[in-house]
Amino acid sequence: MNNSSSSKLIEEAVDQMSSLPGIGRKTALRLVLNLLERETHEIDRFSSAFTKLKAQIKFCEKCRNISDEQLCSICNSKSRDQSQICVVQDIRDILAIESTSQYFGVYHVLGGVISPMDGIGPNDLNISSLIERAEEKALKEVIIALKGNMEGETTGFYLFRKLDPLNIKVTTIARGIAVGDDLEYADEISLGRSITNRSPYSDSMAK
Amino acid sequence: MNNSSSSKLIEEAVDQMSSLPGIGRKTALRLVLNLLERETHEIDRFSSAFTKLKAQIKFCEKCRNISDEQLCSICNSKSRDQSQICVVQDIRDILAIESTSQYFGVYHVLGGVISPMDGIGPNDLNISSLIERAEEKALKEVIIALKGNMEGETTGFYLFRKLDPLNIKVTTIARGIAVGDDLEYADEISLGRSITNRSPYSDSMAK
Repeated sequence: MNNSSSSKLIEEAVDQMSSLPGIGRKTALRLVLNLLERETHEIDRFSSAFTKLKAQIKFCEKCRNISDEQLCSICNSKSRDQSQICVVQDIRDILAIESTSQYFGVYHVLGGVISPMDGIGPNDLNISSLIERAEEKALKEVIIALKGNMEGETTGFYLFRKLDPLNIKVTTIARGIAVGDDLEYADEISLGRSITNRSPYSDSMAK
Repeated sequence: MNNSSSSKLIEEAVDQMSSLPGIGRKTALRLVLNLLERETHEIDRFSSAFTKLKAQIKFCEKCRNISDEQLCSICNSKSRDQSQICVVQDIRDILAIESTSQYFGVYHVLGGVISPMDGIGPNDLNISSLIERAEEKALKEVIIALKGNMEGETTGFYLFRKLDPLNIKVTTIARGIAVGDDLEYADEISLGRSITNRSPYSDSMAK
């Protein structure tokens, strides 16, 4: 499809829609025309959802989860075990683990993984705040729940080296889920099992 | 994935994103988080593209194409043959036909097809304005370029019955494209050929 649309407004809307990952220009046009069929107040609500999100969103001071308050609902919950921290790459992993109903501790969002190829080092991630949490609190366990690829393993090993001297039990989720798969796309049973069957981090190194 | 997100703002953004056709909640979350990583001004631009589109978009007074002006760029063009009207279901079909560079007339957008099952009758479509254009102008030809399904055929036949008494040549695009396929997804060569090889409407009825 060339850009022979008779409207600059449509062009701009399609440009913006197709800026989303995985949305091509044909799909974008279909979505834009679907929006255009709606009432004005519906489109206003659609658009303001994203501007409001950006303007008002906070990040939990403790775990860096996305939150409406200073502390997220998980860190704030009295029914969650504050002595157990599950380290994840981003908030989608929290949602995925929460949906298994197999984990009752709290989280720590790294915001990425160590990736020299992309120029991401330990200082670009929320690692120092994790170490602070580990030093401050009577922590019993840190569960590393990162992807099973090179970057995930590197980051996990880096964290293990930082946390092990603090006499904290460092575990990693069981590789019940396929290596290299995204946590968020794993089925809930496998992901739940991988939480239950977590093993000492040192064991995973031996393999 | 359940709705255990710790943020009502995220929930609302995901709700809105997944209101788009073909976007599930997992994909919506991925898109929303992608947006959230952008700068505020980028998100403002994203959002305003859709509100501006709805507020400022016009429909061409002649052909009902989407337009920034009273007349769309095609109806306004002196290089287009105004005596030849191609009747399409919606503006995506115009974009598809334009991309073939095989058609030099003008268009008329019906805004749908006759579909008793969905309660859409001839009066719900831009048919009377088409008849007016046919009566007013020294029209030579109306090309019916609708889908090859029941509703498209019914609508085409309805138009033929209305236009034939006006001594206008009524043609239909050659079924070079697979029956039942959407015009917008056809490859440009087949679609271009179907414009070139259009046949008298009465022929298509005989088959």
